[in-house]
Amino acid sequence: MLNIVLVKWRLSHTQQLHLQWKFTMSVSRAFKVLVSHPTVPTPALELLRSRGAETIICQSVPPSREEILEKVPGVDAIYWAHYQPLNAGILDAAGSQLRAVSTMSSGIDFVDVPEFQRRKIPLGHTPGVVKNSVADLAIGLMLAAGRNFHAGRRDIENSQWLTERIDWRMGHEIRDSTVGFFGFGGISQAIAKRLQSWDVAKIIYTTRTRKENDVDFKAEHVPFERLLQESDFLVVAAPLTDQTRGKFNAEAFKLMKPSAIFVNVARGGLVQQNDLHEALTTGQIFAAGLDVTTPEPLPADDPLLKLPNCVILPHLGTQTWKTTIEMSLLAANNIINAMEGKPMIRPAY
Amino acid sequence: MLNIVLVKWRLSHTQQLHLQWKFTMSVSRAFKVLVSHPTVPTPALELLRSRGAETIICQSVPPSREEILEKVPGVDAIYWAHYQPLNAGILDAAGSQLRAVSTMSSGIDFVDVPEFQRRKIPLGHTPGVVKNSVADLAIGLMLAAGRNFHAGRRDIENSQWLTERIDWRMGHEIRDSTVGFFGFGGISQAIAKRLQSWDVAKIIYTTRTRKENDVDFKAEHVPFERLLQESDFLVVAAPLTDQTRGKFNAEAFKLMKPSAIFVNVARGGLVQQNDLHEALTTGQIFAAGLDVTTPEPLPADDPLLKLPNCVILPHLGTQTWKTTIEMSLLAANNIINAMEGKPMIRPAY
Repeated sequence: MLNIVLVKWRLSHTQQLHLQWKFTMSVSRAFKVLVSHPTVPTPALELLRSRGAETIICQSVPPSREEILEKVPGVDAIYWAHYQPLNAGILDAAGSQLRAVSTMSSGIDFVDVPEFQRRKIPLGHTPGVVKNSVADLAIGLMLAAGRNFHAGRRDIENSQWLTERIDWRMGHEIRDSTVGFFGFGGISQAIAKRLQSWDVAKIIYTTRTRKENDVDFKAEHVPFERLLQESDFLVVAAPLTDQTRGKFNAEAFKLMKPSAIFVNVARGGLVQQNDLHEALTTGQIFAAGLDVTTPEPLPADDPLLKLPNCVILPHLGTQTWKTTIEMSLLAANNIINAMEGKPMIRPAY
Repeated sequence: MLNIVLVKWRLSHTQQLHLQWKFTMSVSRAFKVLVSHPTVPTPALELLRSRGAETIICQSVPPSREEILEKVPGVDAIYWAHYQPLNAGILDAAGSQLRAVSTMSSGIDFVDVPEFQRRKIPLGHTPGVVKNSVADLAIGLMLAAGRNFHAGRRDIENSQWLTERIDWRMGHEIRDSTVGFFGFGGISQAIAKRLQSWDVAKIIYTTRTRKENDVDFKAEHVPFERLLQESDFLVVAAPLTDQTRGKFNAEAFKLMKPSAIFVNVARGGLVQQNDLHEALTTGQIFAAGLDVTTPEPLPADDPLLKLPNCVILPHLGTQTWKTTIEMSLLAANNIINAMEGKPMIRPAY
């Protein structure tokens, strides 16, 4: 398909139209796509080009709004590959011929969705595909926090590696434990699926309403208080909303087991970070594993970074080639569908 | 049972004999056990006492051979809870009434086994129970190394957390990967069992002879060269022998994928550590996760500790309460069985 398009570029406009008519079933009309970031994976760009796209790629890192506003006029579609505000200003600059926009992200809190609805411009995003990458990372955090990965590393670096104490740096296994989820959507279910062969004693979760497919994971819907009291590993994987903001506070940590491991792969805002610090230093809980913090980037002098029992990552949840390519292809296919007059695969409204 | 024993201590010798006769089915004759380390888990000590043991506990940390030699004369059994030489010197000091010894360890390279055989003293150890704890840790290392846990942490601490690059700190997922094992005993199989619900593409392993139960794990026996060439994650979980020493050297790393993640939870001696360092710095492989090194403790200035793509732990494989208690109970039951004239549960010869 790519070859056909490359050939086309060397033909006259009349010949192009002829070719386009001939391949109308598989090749859409040529269209222009603004790509807001220079490191969108190549497979997505190749896919777009193979379906007739001229790709106009912004080169600034971090992305520059000026560059975007300069390059966006006249495009048919926008491939929004970063997390800066996507709003009327961009849509106005693009012009009335704009027929499709897709983000390359699951969350779209940076998009003025009502503005898209008002203008009836199709908007796509890429939910669902991130779950595998985040699930792997979450289990990595459960294990790293539960087994003293950071404390152990510090012991080596400080020449405190003790070989003669039976009870040194003792950690907790996943086997026979109760694993609790705050939120039981795609990510939590991808984690629960992976743990099916780990001899977990029990999977419990808290959501507003019971998930009908929870039987697939032998998971039990419980009130928040029971989640806190019974979880040996507690994984937060729920959206940040007015209802969930600051949900994990001093009161919550006080209800948890002193042996509990707390993992957050959602958003830093669900946690009162000072209260978590207190819980980790006073032994209210055993350890924490965080992929998300407040703020991001976390300053290098943040008190959490001083703790031996806190594993912290710089928001790497979706940072795998496999998942990033899947996200990039889904965003490209959202746009291609719209160009071909079909509904987007994952419309955002 | 413990209560009965405590009561017994306050009775006369005649009364004791009467009670012992009365409870002969469940309570063995009183016996003395030397416990070589003060932090043997309480459940094991309670079990021994409940079956008639007087426990003589050494208090030195690290264990002192002098203290052991001073306390061991006249005991009926030795509970060897550390890894210092257990040989004729200890057996001579104990005396000819010694009827049982159990280590609290899987490996017994610190024991002079022929000396035990010559004297016909039953010797027990605790293999098998460590696999769960080590398997969890190994998967933790696969994920931590594959997802840049250490590099990401350094980025935070060096204020290098980048939020605006799509391709920053990209890692590798376990899904759809080929997981290879060098050695396919209890630990490898416990890892393979846990990965059954992870949508792994393929499990391969190298051992001298095919394991008949490999079908249970959908695992394929392959030559060493194929293991190196095909593994996305390569986990070393084999004993250190003259055949395996230094097996992972420059030649081996050259055959591996540049995207490969190398994990060692066996013994540091299986790896040529300088060659691993070279492979990690030149991009021959993507990352490594090591629970074992040469030497142990690893000096704080070891070059491996400088690398962003090397996760290192201070040999924490068995360091969980659950597994340590299981090991301690198995060692206690080895001794109890011998005291009751039965074969040990896990005899070492």
